Amino acid sequence: MQLLEERILRDGKVRAGGILKVDGFLNHQMDVGLFAELAKAWHAAFRDDDVNKILTIEASGIGLACIAAQEFGCPVLFAKKTKTKNIDGSVYTTRVMSYTHGNVYDVIVAKEYLRPTDRVLLIDDFLANGAALEGLCDLVRQAGATLVGAGIAVEKAFQPGGARLRAQGLRIESLARIAAMSEDSLTFVR
Amino acid sequence: MQLLEERILRDGKVRAGGILKVDGFLNHQMDVGLFAELAKAWHAAFRDDDVNKILTIEASGIGLACIAAQEFGCPVLFAKKTKTKNIDGSVYTTRVMSYTHGNVYDVIVAKEYLRPTDRVLLIDDFLANGAALEGLCDLVRQAGATLVGAGIAVEKAFQPGGARLRAQGLRIESLARIAAMSEDSLTFVR
Repeated sequence: MQLLEERILRDGKVRAGGILKVDGFLNHQMDVGLFAELAKAWHAAFRDDDVNKILTIEASGIGLACIAAQEFGCPVLFAKKTKTKNIDGSVYTTRVMSYTHGNVYDVIVAKEYLRPTDRVLLIDDFLANGAALEGLCDLVRQAGATLVGAGIAVEKAFQPGGARLRAQGLRIESLARIAAMSEDSLTFVR
Repeated sequence: MQLLEERILRDGKVRAGGILKVDGFLNHQMDVGLFAELAKAWHAAFRDDDVNKILTIEASGIGLACIAAQEFGCPVLFAKKTKTKNIDGSVYTTRVMSYTHGNVYDVIVAKEYLRPTDRVLLIDDFLANGAALEGLCDLVRQAGATLVGAGIAVEKAFQPGGARLRAQGLRIESLARIAAMSEDSLTFVR
């Protein structure tokens, strides 16, 4: 998507260690006008899939998910990161490895809000190693809901998450796919 | 606001320990159609205040803040909870006591996104003891920005946060103000 690619080139900064800093418009300060355009692109891709729920993960997916949900006319559910063991059986739980922070955390959703009748679109800001997205897929599977696909803002296509999840059959619509990046240059997949 | 009060009465549940569970529409599953109505109400209240930035705190404020930002035509900035000491001076930091979780955490915003020229509206889902909102006020103060006020979805008016912050001069527009609640009944401030 040209608009997002241009914005990344203009305002993104590549930091040491393969970090793409886009916190001026995507995941700290958030440009909701841009988000509305991303939402339209995801809606164009999934408009015929009867999406009735958007699932994301806290915190930086929530804004994108809410604006996207307006396009689809459905609610958002966000998976919560937790260190609390929930023993009452009211939640689905999955474990996610964070490569960025070098730790493992549990994410949960309340069972009552993810049902077998749901047709779920996943939304997140980044796809790199795919751990968070894989965790969301697992929650949908546990619920017996239908996984329609995933809408991603920025995919680091040089990292393995996208290829692995597509090989598993997940439909992924990434609006900017980075082929390679360094502190001097950044190129997109064409 | 009648729409929100009715929704709380219909779908909210009061739990032991003064917990109001509204996670079916406000802070786990999120009804973005309802959010749009809340956003209109906040915009009606603050439309003449030249708001050019909305500040919230992760995670459950983000969805409300993004939908509200569409009304105001401005970006959102969300304060991040962190355990990492940031020593490079690029962030404003404040300390927040969580009464819900019984701990203290630091919240940060990048200095580059909160400027003295900003006119900031705070948005959050809940106001009870006021610790989170007070932390956001402190961040605005550190930045030398103008604090326009706060838009809150649900205020527990029987807890001290709202009264204390109003006494300090903060303009707070809470769309549902709970006067008292128990597992059997819930009443709003009239």
